[in-house]
Amino acid sequence: MSPRHFTSIADISSSELSYLVNRAIHHKANVRKGVYNPATPLAGQVVAMLFNKRSTRTRISTEGAVKYLGGHPMFLGKDDIQLGVNETLYDSAKVISSMTSCIVARVGPHSDIQGLAAASRVPVINALCDTYHPLQAVADMITIKESFGEVNGLKVAWVGDANNVLHDLALACVKLGINISAATPKAYPVSQDIIDLVSKAGAETGATLSTTTDPLEAVKNADVIVTDTWISMGQEEEKQLRLKQFAGYQVTQEMAAQGGAKENWKFMHCLPRKQEEVNDEIFYSDRSLVFEEAENRLYSAIACLEGFVVNKGKLIQ
Amino acid sequence: MSPRHFTSIADISSSELSYLVNRAIHHKANVRKGVYNPATPLAGQVVAMLFNKRSTRTRISTEGAVKYLGGHPMFLGKDDIQLGVNETLYDSAKVISSMTSCIVARVGPHSDIQGLAAASRVPVINALCDTYHPLQAVADMITIKESFGEVNGLKVAWVGDANNVLHDLALACVKLGINISAATPKAYPVSQDIIDLVSKAGAETGATLSTTTDPLEAVKNADVIVTDTWISMGQEEEKQLRLKQFAGYQVTQEMAAQGGAKENWKFMHCLPRKQEEVNDEIFYSDRSLVFEEAENRLYSAIACLEGFVVNKGKLIQ
Amino acid sequence: MSPRHFTSIADISSSELSYLVNRAIHHKANVRKGVYNPATPLAGQVVAMLFNKRSTRTRISTEGAVKYLGGHPMFLGKDDIQLGVNETLYDSAKVISSMTSCIVARVGPHSDIQGLAAASRVPVINALCDTYHPLQAVADMITIKESFGEVNGLKVAWVGDANNVLHDLALACVKLGINISAATPKAYPVSQDIIDLVSKAGAETGATLSTTTDPLEAVKNADVIVTDTWISMGQEEEKQLRLKQFAGYQVTQEMAAQGGAKENWKFMHCLPRKQEEVNDEIFYSDRSLVFEEAENRLYSAIACLEGFVVNKGKLIQ
Repeated sequence: MSPRHFTSIADISSSELSYLVNRAIHHKANVRKGVYNPATPLAGQVVAMLFNKRSTRTRISTEGAVKYLGGHPMFLGKDDIQLGVNETLYDSAKVISSMTSCIVARVGPHSDIQGLAAASRVPVINALCDTYHPLQAVADMITIKESFGEVNGLKVAWVGDANNVLHDLALACVKLGINISAATPKAYPVSQDIIDLVSKAGAETGATLSTTTDPLEAVKNADVIVTDTWISMGQEEEKQLRLKQFAGYQVTQEMAAQGGAKENWKFMHCLPRKQEEVNDEIFYSDRSLVFEEAENRLYSAIACLEGFVVNKGKLIQ
Repeated sequence: MSPRHFTSIADISSSELSYLVNRAIHHKANVRKGVYNPATPLAGQVVAMLFNKRSTRTRISTEGAVKYLGGHPMFLGKDDIQLGVNETLYDSAKVISSMTSCIVARVGPHSDIQGLAAASRVPVINALCDTYHPLQAVADMITIKESFGEVNGLKVAWVGDANNVLHDLALACVKLGINISAATPKAYPVSQDIIDLVSKAGAETGATLSTTTDPLEAVKNADVIVTDTWISMGQEEEKQLRLKQFAGYQVTQEMAAQGGAKENWKFMHCLPRKQEEVNDEIFYSDRSLVFEEAENRLYSAIACLEGFVVNKGKLIQ
Repeated sequence: MSPRHFTSIADISSSELSYLVNRAIHHKANVRKGVYNPATPLAGQVVAMLFNKRSTRTRISTEGAVKYLGGHPMFLGKDDIQLGVNETLYDSAKVISSMTSCIVARVGPHSDIQGLAAASRVPVINALCDTYHPLQAVADMITIKESFGEVNGLKVAWVGDANNVLHDLALACVKLGINISAATPKAYPVSQDIIDLVSKAGAETGATLSTTTDPLEAVKNADVIVTDTWISMGQEEEKQLRLKQFAGYQVTQEMAAQGGAKENWKFMHCLPRKQEEVNDEIFYSDRSLVFEEAENRLYSAIACLEGFVVNKGKLIQ
């Protein structure tokens, strides 16, 4: 009996996503009241964190979530273990999964996540790869739900790169009935595979992903404007080129007004943030949900670890 | 409601310092009896340890203290997070403090501690910066109290560099009624700011800090002689120069006798220790409290985490 | 009263080794039933892990074992602490042991293990040095016992380097009545010191170590064939030379048949594994116990920490 893994929002149904969001909000309320891990379902157990890249929020939220559930987060950075270098990925996954209760992996290629999942006898949770970022997408849904209450029928505008964060955000949005419009530069279109996947994912709710190269078009009637870094780790050399390609993509009060965003539009960003992506006026304003969004990473991780590890993939009450 | 931070001994009153020392001794007695964290007040919670420099004693004592209180110490070294590099210090502090119960920071400039404290919504504890080292000073007071019983009226002699360790040691001494005489080389005088701060801190007890460049003058009638490294991290290139400037500063039986230290004078050093600072005869003698002092770092950290995190800055029974 | 350390299988008697193996199997059964640390004997306590080299299995198994017993594993890698660099090994051992309940050390020279043990006031457990690897040997005995039931009278064949893993494996085998034949290349004979030590260790059971340079001779009538890496960390430059010296040492079905291993011979390897040491046909076959062996590192570590730390070296019911 192979465990259920969490490699992308594509792995879970609309109702399962709602369930995770609700559980996260439940745990957040507990922590707000000072109630920590009353049950400690992971007591005595270890969650392996395989991180081949730095990631402040992902690391802190994962360690906090494991501890909340009573387990021990074992952080293995790139100096501790390099997948596929001293032995095959398969061998590493077999060994690590034989001594732990879960593998939370922050890797490069999505194929590494798939390789870990194929060999592991415990759940593998994708904590960021080049294609997906499901824990961020769950945190984003928590944040939108907290801010708007009812999420069905909202519109999210993505203004930025066609990256891993967008992929799972789009999947999550349409699964919860949120329409999403993504503006990405001409040089970086959303891949057809993702467009197809999101289209299929939205069938149940009728929500859709539309794509454009025009930020102003994307933000029209938007309830939420979301962006992310333009220059991911490893792309530093292309910085000047990319800054040019993203001209007009900075989120500001003016661009939102010009494009016709809703009056009470909110701003989100998964951080870390650079000035070019959004100006200070928005980033530190009341519109900005960025710090709530970051904090919700903790509750996203708690809900997902509870669902996939403690409850063995049963994501329903 | 901003949390209470612990950035320097200057932040706490004489009676609060006494309270921390007494609580530390209480917890030490428990551990000696084999009683560990009966209450686990930090169960389910994470304490972030932001360490931009190596620090064996600070790290071990902090991790031990967090565990004793039932929490999880999350160690973030310079390869894990670099304050101010990928995002502003402010953003990092906001995010980290939203997912943890305390930030223990071992940084460079004191302004980083102040920046963290300004943005954090949980207590920030200074675990060493370029200006202060409060957890060491509390450990030193525990050590002196254990060795002498009554501390009021004692004399401590500092023979070494005018550094962060001296600053908080001097503040702690005068707050507990211990006079302190500091000999530092002519090239490294104690700053006037610190002299003023200590003078103010000693007003209540009447204890004072006196400064000199003559080690023999400093140790006259001393109950305790304290030193520290002459060459801190980052100063390795100046080694030869500094060794010359510190000529005559090695603590030995002869220099103590010549200067007129009390017959039963004790020796302290916060470690790691090099030969030039103190000879083996003293360092490994019965006069030497260095290993008790190091061990007391654990109980200092327990008392401070209990006071600032568990009891939210209420440092009184 | 100096604590009892675990630096090599030579430190424990035959019946103590059997006890550790039985306790490990007991804890494994608990975990299989989902029962984790019901007693948490290390609650509130820290186990220091001093690792100057990377070691996936050793790290994961140690962290898992400490957590199973309720303690906190504090990982100190080569960037965190370097024994003997900033202060003497003696000073470090004194300080670390004053704030922790055990030191698990993965070092270079065995003299470092001995130095730590001489200064530490808590048990030192050798988690791999250049001469011994006792936790691996206990795991190997667990694995053989699980596979064969009765171990007395079995024959183990070692085909590989004359290294640390072999040393403690040979000691463990003869203490449990298992004969061991070691084939090592002419350039790498088993040292006379080890031969003498194993000879003495086998006196009680009558089991012996025999040595040869011929892999076919070693595997004759073997119940288990064991190998390990030919090129240890630090030996990468000699790779081509060593590959030549180890010609004929790859474990395959053909070599086992040619040498006359028992029909149901099993294969073991402490991992990580390279192709040259054993082919895929054997490594991933039903003969291969390698993944059970790796998993048993966890239970070996639990039993040894329980025996040496919780029960203070009393290795008997």
